[in-house]
Amino acid sequence: MLSCDLCNGEAVIYQRHSNRHLCKKHFIRDFEKRIKYAVNKYKMIEKNDKIAIALSGGKDSVVLAFVLSKLYGKRRDIEFIAITIDEGIEGYRPPTVEIAKNIAKNLEIEHHIVSFKENFGLTLDEMVRIGEKKPCSYCGVFRKYLLNKTARELNATKLATGHNLDDETQTIMLNYIHGDIERLARLIPQRVQEDLILRIKPMREVYEKEVVIYGLLNGLPQDMNECPYSYFPVRAAIRDFLYEFENKYPGRKFSIMRGFENLIPCLKELYPQVKLNKCERCGEPTSKNICQACVLLDELKTKLEC
Amino acid sequence: MLSCDLCNGEAVIYQRHSNRHLCKKHFIRDFEKRIKYAVNKYKMIEKNDKIAIALSGGKDSVVLAFVLSKLYGKRRDIEFIAITIDEGIEGYRPPTVEIAKNIAKNLEIEHHIVSFKENFGLTLDEMVRIGEKKPCSYCGVFRKYLLNKTARELNATKLATGHNLDDETQTIMLNYIHGDIERLARLIPQRVQEDLILRIKPMREVYEKEVVIYGLLNGLPQDMNECPYSYFPVRAAIRDFLYEFENKYPGRKFSIMRGFENLIPCLKELYPQVKLNKCERCGEPTSKNICQACVLLDELKTKLEC
Repeated sequence: MLSCDLCNGEAVIYQRHSNRHLCKKHFIRDFEKRIKYAVNKYKMIEKNDKIAIALSGGKDSVVLAFVLSKLYGKRRDIEFIAITIDEGIEGYRPPTVEIAKNIAKNLEIEHHIVSFKENFGLTLDEMVRIGEKKPCSYCGVFRKYLLNKTARELNATKLATGHNLDDETQTIMLNYIHGDIERLARLIPQRVQEDLILRIKPMREVYEKEVVIYGLLNGLPQDMNECPYSYFPVRAAIRDFLYEFENKYPGRKFSIMRGFENLIPCLKELYPQVKLNKCERCGEPTSKNICQACVLLDELKTKLEC
Repeated sequence: MLSCDLCNGEAVIYQRHSNRHLCKKHFIRDFEKRIKYAVNKYKMIEKNDKIAIALSGGKDSVVLAFVLSKLYGKRRDIEFIAITIDEGIEGYRPPTVEIAKNIAKNLEIEHHIVSFKENFGLTLDEMVRIGEKKPCSYCGVFRKYLLNKTARELNATKLATGHNLDDETQTIMLNYIHGDIERLARLIPQRVQEDLILRIKPMREVYEKEVVIYGLLNGLPQDMNECPYSYFPVRAAIRDFLYEFENKYPGRKFSIMRGFENLIPCLKELYPQVKLNKCERCGEPTSKNICQACVLLDELKTKLEC
């Protein structure tokens, strides 16, 4: 039995980046410390916030709801609600919606389930059958649209998502490699845009592996299924590289994050925040005249009528 | 036989990034076009320049000397000289010094060979035996020191090195991953610093593979041996990743370069150019009081006296 480097307890994890074995108690403490660090660093959670948690029911969002509730749930000046988007993906989404329901109930968080079908008249499965775009093109646009709209209608001040350190560094590297500095600038935390609910990522300083272990140690349901439509070959190549690289040179994901953060002041200058328009069709925020959700819906309706 | 996409000639290369087969004539034209593009973009070569070429005798620097001489050698307002640093690496360096001599002679470029032994009293092999640092730590410092000093003493206005697109993108990625934005800023082309001869990299827009093929097609000597001291495991991991990635998604090295270039305005603001001091010992430029070459020489001398 390997023992914890901070006490004599049984180690549950070897943290490569800190070169420490940690027991359950000390790992949980360390994990939560880094959540609080990220939250404080970017003032993600403030007095009088009403935070909408994007709760898909997958492993990341379940841990997010649990840890935010544990760390901030007792504060009377902060309120949490949860929003689950049901895209309508047969076989894949229903079980996680159930998980989301249960976790929200257990954590006593007000829960809202919003579906593509009710809002757009079509499930994602139907969109994919009708349309010509890739599933993720529909899903990305409509999911973000509904999350933002629902959060705003519920008077949320912020929208918390379950992105972890692995997700964030993959996206940063993806943008470096594509040379897409404008998209890189969108990753700046606390980037306020009118009518867009401010997004926060409290788990940006913890590894995906740690999220899984934290979930296990807290007896949280872990749905590890991947969306059947998931297809990101470029991101997967970067993920695999970073995984191997991190294995050889632990802590590099942190340094990627720090490097990105060092660029933030000038990214802000290169790409100042733009004032968004209101979509002429639905009134939701957009950088154009008509928002991408309305454009895609039009395309799908035309297809349906043919 | 595969034929050139621009004529009916026999193809000598398949350019993945442009999805073209090219014959000898069209490949050479394309290669040289990109050299000129890089040179013009950053005003690397201007009227009345005296350009010192860092000519190690390896495959890259030989192509560099050849192509610069071919493209700009006839201009009366531009002068080229070549500097070869003989670090004193038994078995490895002597043959490339011979190659450098021959190529400079053939191209009718004034050639200067400068050795560690003459300047510092020790060869690199001796330094490695005496000192405790890694070979590349000595070599990097002393080679750059001698290149800069020699170029300045010969009244060169610029120092051209053979870095290609692969080298540059590896360094860019290395700095992203290490989160070292200050080092990233050092890669800005045309970064003027007093007493430091301006470095130019005319081959930054051509792939290493293209450099090799261009050299072969022009009958240039190709020394493919690697320095026996060469040991850059982190860079090697990034090189391998980029190689595989570029194979799957051709042209990514260009997009990495474009992304870096998009960051240049803000890198310049984050890290404004510093005025360098003169080393109290040798008078060469340094950001400290005593330059790193003098510091290392002191260490080596102390070791020798023990």
